[in-house]
Amino acid sequence: MTQVAIPVFPRFTALDAVGPYEVLQRLPSVDVVFVGHQRGEVRTANHMLGMTCDATFDEVSTPDVVVFPGGPGTRILVEDQTFRGWLQSVHPHTKFTTSVCTGALVLGAAGLLDGLTATTHWRAAEQLNELGATYVPDRVVEHLPQRIITAAGVSSGIDMALRLAELLVDREAAEAIQLLIEYDPQPPFDSGALAKADTATKALAEFLSPLP
Amino acid sequence: MTQVAIPVFPRFTALDAVGPYEVLQRLPSVDVVFVGHQRGEVRTANHMLGMTCDATFDEVSTPDVVVFPGGPGTRILVEDQTFRGWLQSVHPHTKFTTSVCTGALVLGAAGLLDGLTATTHWRAAEQLNELGATYVPDRVVEHLPQRIITAAGVSSGIDMALRLAELLVDREAAEAIQLLIEYDPQPPFDSGALAKADTATKALAEFLSPLP
Repeated sequence: MTQVAIPVFPRFTALDAVGPYEVLQRLPSVDVVFVGHQRGEVRTANHMLGMTCDATFDEVSTPDVVVFPGGPGTRILVEDQTFRGWLQSVHPHTKFTTSVCTGALVLGAAGLLDGLTATTHWRAAEQLNELGATYVPDRVVEHLPQRIITAAGVSSGIDMALRLAELLVDREAAEAIQLLIEYDPQPPFDSGALAKADTATKALAEFLSPLP
Repeated sequence: MTQVAIPVFPRFTALDAVGPYEVLQRLPSVDVVFVGHQRGEVRTANHMLGMTCDATFDEVSTPDVVVFPGGPGTRILVEDQTFRGWLQSVHPHTKFTTSVCTGALVLGAAGLLDGLTATTHWRAAEQLNELGATYVPDRVVEHLPQRIITAAGVSSGIDMALRLAELLVDREAAEAIQLLIEYDPQPPFDSGALAKADTATKALAEFLSPLP
């Protein structure tokens, strides 16, 4: 079995975690475990959604894959020695250590992105650069020799996970999963990347989601 | 405030619920509540993910919007009088009653899709037709006079929720949310709809996810 560990923590962004979960859990060879400081419920920043952390870091010491989600809570995690230490201890043994959105900041704080290009949520680009990585605005950035893959904001974890499914099993399995989750996107608008959004859309987005 | 109720139940599909949640919770005027038979944790079909049901049906009697997710558990819900009765009692007062994936089967069982076209996961098309709807393979099907919107499998709930954000507030808000969740999809393959997948992909998908 391939163990996929998804860290969860207070003020995580739910879709960052659940997008990759929904893809990877469909591989029969995969077991997904949500890991954190302690077992029990963690809540998103708005407190509207609770998810269960099923295992402590001690219990998940040799995951094959790490998918680190983002969220406002990552601003605290970059200072959290337990999260950083766990990443540093498991990364040498993983097949892939990956992040979605501002999860990249925690990988950066753990030193895993030193000297690498990486992506994150567009609002966290500067902070990522301060943590040793070089931000690029791509949706998914992979460094296969280093076994590091980073995805941009929130929904990009779905794209990354399909690529991970290909890397872990094969393209046929990844394509079958894409069909199972009917990932044939038809967004009603075309403002999903900073390069495509106009100034007013960017300003409204910043108003709706002020930086912590 | 606009109350968005997302029913949860054993063997629900997490992304069906969390995709729309992630979009709609970003509207400052929206409060999302996860509702079900009883408060407490519900688990996905594989038991790998637990989410919290925060309110009982009695506590959510006049939601403005319903987003009914799918999952293997819906095969039981179509026989569940509490879920059907709740839908029948709240629908006359909602702005929109919607579903993702096989959530449409429960809307159908409650009689809400009688005589309407609707969409669901491609594997549930026949069952949807047996429940009074006419299946069409579109990603999102809306009937604004009836205030009913259905989305196809799993990931299509994200597209539907962006449209809902536009209907509930305006296009500018929906575009800002699309930017915040960086929904600029770039799937690595193109097998996300039945019309695009080849026979082998379809067969493998059916093998990976046998019908209950």
